[in-house]
Amino acid sequence: MYTLYYAPATASMAVHLALLETGAPYELQLVDFEKNQQKDPAYLRLNPNGVVPTLVCDGKPYIETAALMMLLAERHPAAGLTGTPEQYDEWRQWMVYLSHNLQATYRFWFYPSELGYATHPDEVCHALQTRIEKIWDQLDQHLNAHGPYLLGAQFSVADLYLTLLMRWSRKMPHPATEWPALNHLVQLITNRPSWKKMMEIEGVDIWPEDKTV
Amino acid sequence: MYTLYYAPATASMAVHLALLETGAPYELQLVDFEKNQQKDPAYLRLNPNGVVPTLVCDGKPYIETAALMMLLAERHPAAGLTGTPEQYDEWRQWMVYLSHNLQATYRFWFYPSELGYATHPDEVCHALQTRIEKIWDQLDQHLNAHGPYLLGAQFSVADLYLTLLMRWSRKMPHPATEWPALNHLVQLITNRPSWKKMMEIEGVDIWPEDKTV
Ligand SMILES: N[C@@H](CCC(=O)N[C@@H](CS)C(=O)NCC(=O)O)C(=O)O
Ligand SMILES: N[C@@H](CCC(=O)N[C@@H](CS)C(=O)NCC(=O)O)C(=O)O
Repeated sequence: MYTLYYAPATASMAVHLALLETGAPYELQLVDFEKNQQKDPAYLRLNPNGVVPTLVCDGKPYIETAALMMLLAERHPAAGLTGTPEQYDEWRQWMVYLSHNLQATYRFWFYPSELGYATHPDEVCHALQTRIEKIWDQLDQHLNAHGPYLLGAQFSVADLYLTLLMRWSRKMPHPATEWPALNHLVQLITNRPSWKKMMEIEGVDIWPEDKTV
Repeated sequence: MYTLYYAPATASMAVHLALLETGAPYELQLVDFEKNQQKDPAYLRLNPNGVVPTLVCDGKPYIETAALMMLLAERHPAAGLTGTPEQYDEWRQWMVYLSHNLQATYRFWFYPSELGYATHPDEVCHALQTRIEKIWDQLDQHLNAHGPYLLGAQFSVADLYLTLLMRWSRKMPHPATEWPALNHLVQLITNRPSWKKMMEIEGVDIWPEDKTV
């Protein structure tokens, strides 16, 4: 039994999706950002960074979105979330790549205070946007040549993670869905039952709007 | 046989250390930053980000420091680099934690251009420094309670990775070695034969100076 500490429409969605894909029983615990519950001393004992997600697993709290997705994928091999055994090193690389290059950059995009600002000056906005779009270029090129999933014909949790991170670009000047191979992956993932169920449970708006592409 | 594309005194040191700890045969390929070789088209085919390290393994290039250390640790179980099997989830979490929170923040610290600056304005410097020092606080507290290694009595590649990342703070206003439990870990790791050998091969200055603590 897993317990996921989550807030709707945040990074915890990725772990929620992975849980649904494993089919394992789990409980949700809302961390109410409006009440700043993520900084409550009791919660900080589970997650010293005061962020979601936290996954309690065999009574022990674990943190870091990418690590939690890997934990679930590896503990539930029957769900086929890690790719084939031959693809394991490549799968691990994608998980780290997405965490280090993409999610960590988004953190600065969404939390200007982490760079000492109330709102970002234009040059910082522009630099972070450029960095993120360079990643869309790279990934789109990869998917074009080797897709439709990050591991080719093989779906894995890395695709769930990437789709979540693509969703975060929806209000940026150039959302990831403007890149054709990325948009194709978005369609594949958002049509999965796990995605629809997660959106319904968390009460999050439909995305992307256009399902016809 | 592994081939490590490296530049002395950079992130590739961490992978070099892990290679030495496994005892596996390897070759070094210098990527000359003075000649900007990391941006050569031939190298970009191995590593689209144009950075070191890249590890070629069974003829296939892999990237991302944390992923490479995990790859080596898992491919060479006899070297005992992943901690005990019971600690596996915790070990993975530390690897992702260090990559996402610490190494990714350092990237902005050392490369102001990634934020659109030639040199960082004071508020950005201060914010990044605060972020890094908060991590030293967290890790020092953890090691104090559960050390001396990240996995307690059990050494793992996560300690090599952390020590490398601590070295990068040596010219910051408060180097990680000012935190006692972190400093103790630095002593343990820099006294390992792998550390001494790596420093000698790469021709990097001794650090930390004070071996008496
Ligand atoms: N490194 C963390 C970052 C998670 C994170 O930034 N979560 C955000 C929501 S997407 C959060 O909890 N923000 C609340 C806050 O920072 O106070 C992870 O990957 O789990
Ligand atoms: N995410 C990469 C980052 C590596 C990185 O930033 N390497 C630096 C040296 S420490 C580099 O190659 N810099 C050269 C450049 O950016 O041109 C990893 O973890 O491997």
